[in-house]
Amino acid sequence: MEIYLDNASTTKVKDEVIKSMQVYQTDNYSNPSSIHSQGEKAKQALEKARKIIADKMNARPNEIIFTSGTTESNNLALRGIANYYKKGHIITTKIEHASILETCKELEKQGFKISYLDVDQEGYIGLKDLENNITKETILISVIHANNEIGTIQDLNKISEIASKHKIKFHTDAAQSFCKLAIDSKNIDLISLNSHKIHGPKGIGALYIKTGTKLSPQITGGGQESNIRSGTENLPGIIGFAKAVELFTDIDQIQKFQIYFIDELLTIPGTKLNGPITRLCNNINLQFPKLESDSLLLKLDKQGIYTSTGSACSSKKPSHVLKAIGLTDKQIKHSLRLSLSVFNNKEQIDYTIKKIKEILSS
Amino acid sequence: MEIYLDNASTTKVKDEVIKSMQVYQTDNYSNPSSIHSQGEKAKQALEKARKIIADKMNARPNEIIFTSGTTESNNLALRGIANYYKKGHIITTKIEHASILETCKELEKQGFKISYLDVDQEGYIGLKDLENNITKETILISVIHANNEIGTIQDLNKISEIASKHKIKFHTDAAQSFCKLAIDSKNIDLISLNSHKIHGPKGIGALYIKTGTKLSPQITGGGQESNIRSGTENLPGIIGFAKAVELFTDIDQIQKFQIYFIDELLTIPGTKLNGPITRLCNNINLQFPKLESDSLLLKLDKQGIYTSTGSACSSKKPSHVLKAIGLTDKQIKHSLRLSLSVFNNKEQIDYTIKKIKEILSS
Repeated sequence: MEIYLDNASTTKVKDEVIKSMQVYQTDNYSNPSSIHSQGEKAKQALEKARKIIADKMNARPNEIIFTSGTTESNNLALRGIANYYKKGHIITTKIEHASILETCKELEKQGFKISYLDVDQEGYIGLKDLENNITKETILISVIHANNEIGTIQDLNKISEIASKHKIKFHTDAAQSFCKLAIDSKNIDLISLNSHKIHGPKGIGALYIKTGTKLSPQITGGGQESNIRSGTENLPGIIGFAKAVELFTDIDQIQKFQIYFIDELLTIPGTKLNGPITRLCNNINLQFPKLESDSLLLKLDKQGIYTSTGSACSSKKPSHVLKAIGLTDKQIKHSLRLSLSVFNNKEQIDYTIKKIKEILSS
Repeated sequence: MEIYLDNASTTKVKDEVIKSMQVYQTDNYSNPSSIHSQGEKAKQALEKARKIIADKMNARPNEIIFTSGTTESNNLALRGIANYYKKGHIITTKIEHASILETCKELEKQGFKISYLDVDQEGYIGLKDLENNITKETILISVIHANNEIGTIQDLNKISEIASKHKIKFHTDAAQSFCKLAIDSKNIDLISLNSHKIHGPKGIGALYIKTGTKLSPQITGGGQESNIRSGTENLPGIIGFAKAVELFTDIDQIQKFQIYFIDELLTIPGTKLNGPITRLCNNINLQFPKLESDSLLLKLDKQGIYTSTGSACSSKKPSHVLKAIGLTDKQIKHSLRLSLSVFNNKEQIDYTIKKIKEILSS
């Protein structure tokens, strides 16, 4: 039995998604910018896909800009705003994904001021703390919607109220939450979206950019994507991304399994949940005091169970997220992330629980 | 009959390429940065693909950095070098792709000096002119290998001799030439590579970066691709790209058809070839004085024959390339590009010749 429990890292592409892409690889493979009728048809398919994604968040189609993935989207949001305003202050949090944190470090080198908000033991930022950090120079607030390691869901509405009160642009990294949680673009200026975490293809993503939000393009050329992101449109990827969005309907089963999984594992003496009880539907992050998670991961791996110790994008460093919620180095070393998808079933979860119990009691 | 003659814009993905990608979408879809054994296997597949592409140009695997396509690669090369050196002078040509020219314009706004070399009537730069343009401030020379509109092939060896004599970094945009022409990375510092023009997937490309060449990353995050290009690796795209490189072996047939095609069309009174006689194997660019190419394109389109008036990435503007080789606005308006691939056969070419002759004589 093979059990994939690393769905926060990336997911299996659905067969229907692959099928939807194929026609644009071998049938009408034209460049959407070509002026012949096949190019025009490709352009129409592109715009149809754009609308599907826009509809998911109450956006206008022309507010969706396709990129190569969330890392690029996050870079475009931060660097794009920073380069447009040329100077200023950005507020973010200590539990962002590496693509936000490393980009902020880069912007600091360029002279921008960055504030990294603390979070509480469950991973929530403080709204008063956010407001206290705002200065006259603040140009952007960037807060991750659902955390990739511990599943904490920030209150976007309340953050956007503060941002809008102070007339500051608000960006959220929705890499983990898109489709799993409702997102309304109404009060958000920039939203980074992901395909490969919702059973869509890798190599494609998007940035929602509210009409009127000015930013500097980071990849220039043929002027595709409303002159914001040049390069031949990855039409098969875009079609697959939209299909994945259409197919992603129900999180009830995942949530039910998540609760069951957590409850069962918490019966193991000493086990602790990292992060809040109510969290992103597919995320589980636990401390197992009896064994370091590197060892537990390898032992599970030998049983065909694939888990992670944190973000795949930061797999070589100890988790900055777990540190931010107050865990000791030892507790971090004993923490394991299990992330679910619709492809997991009860049998797999029971088998995993059994194996974890066996390993920890041996 | 449908005849696709816009292969300089993008190409049909080969069935074997799609098949090669599928296993990494539905079977082992793991993130190559994940530390479990499936992630490790994905990483191994990634490195095998990297070696296939490196071998094609006598490069070391770690000199190949995957990007989302040539536009990003060109941006990374130019912006990466510019941002690393922080100031200086760049030499390029008037017949580059939009992703070079628009990026140079952007760098000009940031204070960099750019020289745009003239070309002769066949599209060749002057080597003396190149050398005369070098100053003490020159940090980069960027010259397109095979032109996307008229197929002119620049002498990379001679350019690299000049660059290396003056200790200046040399970049070439090989979007059109990769696999169609031999490229040896020995004397070149940066080479932009393309997948979707050689029957590989869209949304993936690469930049060859010679060991020791310093540039600033443009997309930061998890530190993938030797810390030069962050973001979850598009493994299916990379696998498909490498497969397309492996499958791209023979250009003899394309070249034979190209010569036949040009010879036949030149029998139409008044028809002129744009660019040199010896050119990239799949490129044809002709002036038909009897009809504007927009009309000719549409009439051919109605017959199921798909052509272009120039770069898909600049399809709305009159060609800067044709202007640079000395064509009048009228001549540019009468120029049509026909670009071949291995999927074109003699029957298609004869049918196209017949239709062009019919349209022009009606």
